[in-house]
Parts: sequence; structure tokens; C-alpha cells
Amino acid sequence: MLLGKVVGTLVATHKDEKMEGLKFLVVRQITVDNAETANYVVAVDAVGAGVGEVVMYASGSSARQTKTTDQRPCDAVIMAIVDTWNVGDEVKYRKD
Amino acid sequence: MLLGKVVGTLVATHKDEKMEGLKFLVVRQITVDNAETANYVVAVDAVGAGVGEVVMYASGSSARQTKTTDQRPCDAVIMAIVDTWNVGDEVKYRKD
Amino acid sequence: MLLGKVVGTLVATHKDEKMEGLKFLVVRQITVDNAETANYVVAVDAVGAGVGEVVMYASGSSARQTKTTDQRPCDAVIMAIVDTWNVGDEVKYRKD
Amino acid sequence: MLLGKVVGTLVATHKDEKMEGLKFLVVRQITVDNAETANYVVAVDAVGAGVGEVVMYASGSSARQTKTTDQRPCDAVIMAIVDTWNVGDEVKYRKD
Amino acid sequence: MLLGKVVGTLVATHKDEKMEGLKFLVVRQITVDNAETANYVVAVDAVGAGVGEVVMYASGSSARQTKTTDQRPCDAVIMAIVDTWNVGDEVKYRKD
Repeated sequence: MLLGKVVGTLVATHKDEKMEGLKFLVVRQITVDNAETANYVVAVDAVGAGVGEVVMYASGSSARQTKTTDQRPCDAVIMAIVDTWNVGDEVKYRKD
Repeated sequence: MLLGKVVGTLVATHKDEKMEGLKFLVVRQITVDNAETANYVVAVDAVGAGVGEVVMYASGSSARQTKTTDQRPCDAVIMAIVDTWNVGDEVKYRKD
Repeated sequence: MLLGKVVGTLVATHKDEKMEGLKFLVVRQITVDNAETANYVVAVDAVGAGVGEVVMYASGSSARQTKTTDQRPCDAVIMAIVDTWNVGDEVKYRKD
Repeated sequence: MLLGKVVGTLVATHKDEKMEGLKFLVVRQITVDNAETANYVVAVDAVGAGVGEVVMYASGSSARQTKTTDQRPCDAVIMAIVDTWNVGDEVKYRKD
Repeated sequence: MLLGKVVGTLVATHKDEKMEGLKFLVVRQITVDNAETANYVVAVDAVGAGVGEVVMYASGSSARQTKTTDQRPCDAVIMAIVDTWNVGDEVKYRKD
């Protein structure tokens, strides 16, 4: 999985029928040191994440393994809200 | 999913039988700030998208989860036409 | 899918039994403007493509969705020979 | 598979129900010459790996082929702890 | 599939039970012109390849389509030993 920060929301009223009712979040990928990058993904939210939160997302077929995304044309899912991680002795992020 | 702008169409009369009847669109990948990039994909259209529209596409096995693309040798599908998205307080795109 | 130009052939007599009888083509990836790149893939041919032709290929599990490649350890398949594509008003390629 | 060094741990109490009970490790990708890179992945641990160890991880759908990760929204799994590898005559790493 | 040169071997005694008995080879990716690159993969050997040989490998779920790797957490498999390939009129590699 990769780490990202939810930076926005996306609306698409005209979409494949299997995508009805899903929430799309714009996620900017962050480095292991918690720096934002230019990479992003639009992910389906499976855990009730909100803008500003740091999340973990799964890509590819694994993105369809939540109840929310099962058998849908979805290749990225937010499957966890991150509390904290460290690299060595350094805490890189801690949720307020 | 990634965001793209439909910039053209592609014709391929000689193709795998499972690809008969599908519409191929040339999609240029765009950044989270709605800038065009050099990256592209040829995607099957599952939602009636047209040239000039901003779309969302799914890749890999997830591209086969629409009725249009089920069990076909297709690794990219347009599964939504985008209305709008924002990053923070800034609206990055709004469909006319 | 991505676009490529078939630039050569590959022979591998010693291979997994499921790959027996398949034709391997060396495909150089091309840009949306029909310029050759340094990227390549060795793809199984499912449509009778030949050296010099511009083709479309599918990657990953989608590469196993043709009759030719079903259930084989193949992650790239040529599933169409391209006739033409355009970007905006410009025809980027037209098969002779 | 790729090689990585386990550099930290990650905690996420709010997550998809299928991810309950799994251990998340922060893995920095290393080169074939055993140099750390800027690339990382958060992987589920299927083998009891610890911080500081050099491991091998599988990505994509293959990351769901362990008992630990079966049918879960997990796209990276540590499936081996590395003892040693060489490139040519040179031992690049040997576990203490 | 991509082309690679087998440059070494890897030993991992502590691993997921499904990986028992498999042979891990260190494969350096090569270009279409047969030049070594910095990219590598650790692949399971399904064809009896040895150090120094030029091989073709499949990635992702396709890496599980050999008898050796079926249903295992393996995302890269050597599925052919290459005899020769050409680009245009130029033979880029020929096995001795």
C-alpha cells in the first residue's frame, strides 16, 4: 500500500452503473517522510476518510476486496486512516 | 483511478474477436491540477464519453469490471465523466 | 492499452509448457504522437501482426483474455492492429 | 519480487474490517546492490519480519496469496526474510 | 514480458509456506538493445534457468500461471530462456 493525503473531492454524475453511490476522494501521494508529491490517485473511500486526513490506499485488483468496491471498476481504494508511522526512531506522522 | 482528457479516437478493424464493437478513445493523462501530460492511454469507453471531455479511467483487471469490458483483453476503461474536482479550496475543473 | 510498433521477433525454444506454439514479437512503445520510445515489451501475438506494423497491446491479467493467451504466463498481448488514430484535428498515424 | 529493508511500523486503528489484526511494516525498497532508495511500500507482514531486516515482498494480486492476506484489500506482502543474495561473484547481503 | 539477464541467486530460508522449494533468481532487466539496466527483479525460476542466461519473465498475476507458481505469492516468474531476438535487421542477442 502507499500513503497519501486526502486533498479534495471529485464529483462524476455520469458514470458506470457499478460506481453509483461511491465517494471519490483526490489523494496526493506522500513520501515515507510525509512530504507531498506530484503523484495523485482518485480513490474510492471505504473507511469514511475526510479531506486533510492521511490514509493508506490499495491499488489494482486488491482495490476491489472491500465490501464497498467488490466487483466494481475501481483500481484504488482507501482502506485505512493512518494514526502514525515511524522510520527508525523518528515519528514521521501522528494523527491529531 | 486517474484523470484524463479525451483527445482523439482510434480505429482498429483487425482485432481480437472479443474487442469487436468497442469504442477506443485516446486519453491524455492530466495532473491533479488539470494540466495535460505526455502520458496517454487508449481506453475503451463504457460511459459514452466524447472528445474534449475530462474523464476518469480504471486500469488493470478493474478495467474489465464494466458490462462493456467484461472478460475482454482490455486494460483501461473510461468509467466516469468528471463534473468537477477540487484540491483544498481551489476548484481545479468544472464541466461546462 | 498502449500503442507500439512491432520491431522484431524473439525465439525461445526452452520455455514453460503453456507458452508452446505462441509467437513472440518485440514491440517498441510509441507516444501518442507516434514517436518511438526506449520502452519495449515482448508480447504474444493474438492477431497475426507483423514486423513494421503499429499495434495496440494489453498488459497484466487482461493480456490473458484472448483465446491465444488464456491461462498462460503471459503479461502482454497484441490484441489489435491499428488503422489510424488522431489527436484533435491531427491524424497521427494511418496504416498504408 | 522486490527487495526492501523494514525501516518502521505503521498503526491504523480505523481500517477496512478485512484488515483487522494485520501488521503493517514500512519497507524501503533497496537496489540489487543493497542500497536504500527513496521508494517505499507499506506491506503486510506474513512471515514475522522485524524492523531492520531485509525482506522480499510481492505486489498486486500476488500479495493476496498468503493465508494472512487472502481476499483482503492488500497489494503488498512480505513473503520472505532474505538470508543472502549475490550478483556475480559478489555477495551483496548476508543476514547476521 | 520483459527481458533480463540472470545475475545471481537469492536464499531465503524463512518464507511463506507456499514459497517452499522454489528457486529465486536475481534478474537484471535489459533493454531491447541488450544493455543491462539498474532495474532488477527477484523471480521464481519455472524453466531451469542459470546464472548468465538471458531470460524472459512475466509479472503480476500472470506470474502465477505456471505449474511451479500456481496460487503462490509470487509476482515474477522466468517463463522462457531466450535463444535470440532481433530489432529490424539487427540480431541483438544470440545464445551461445
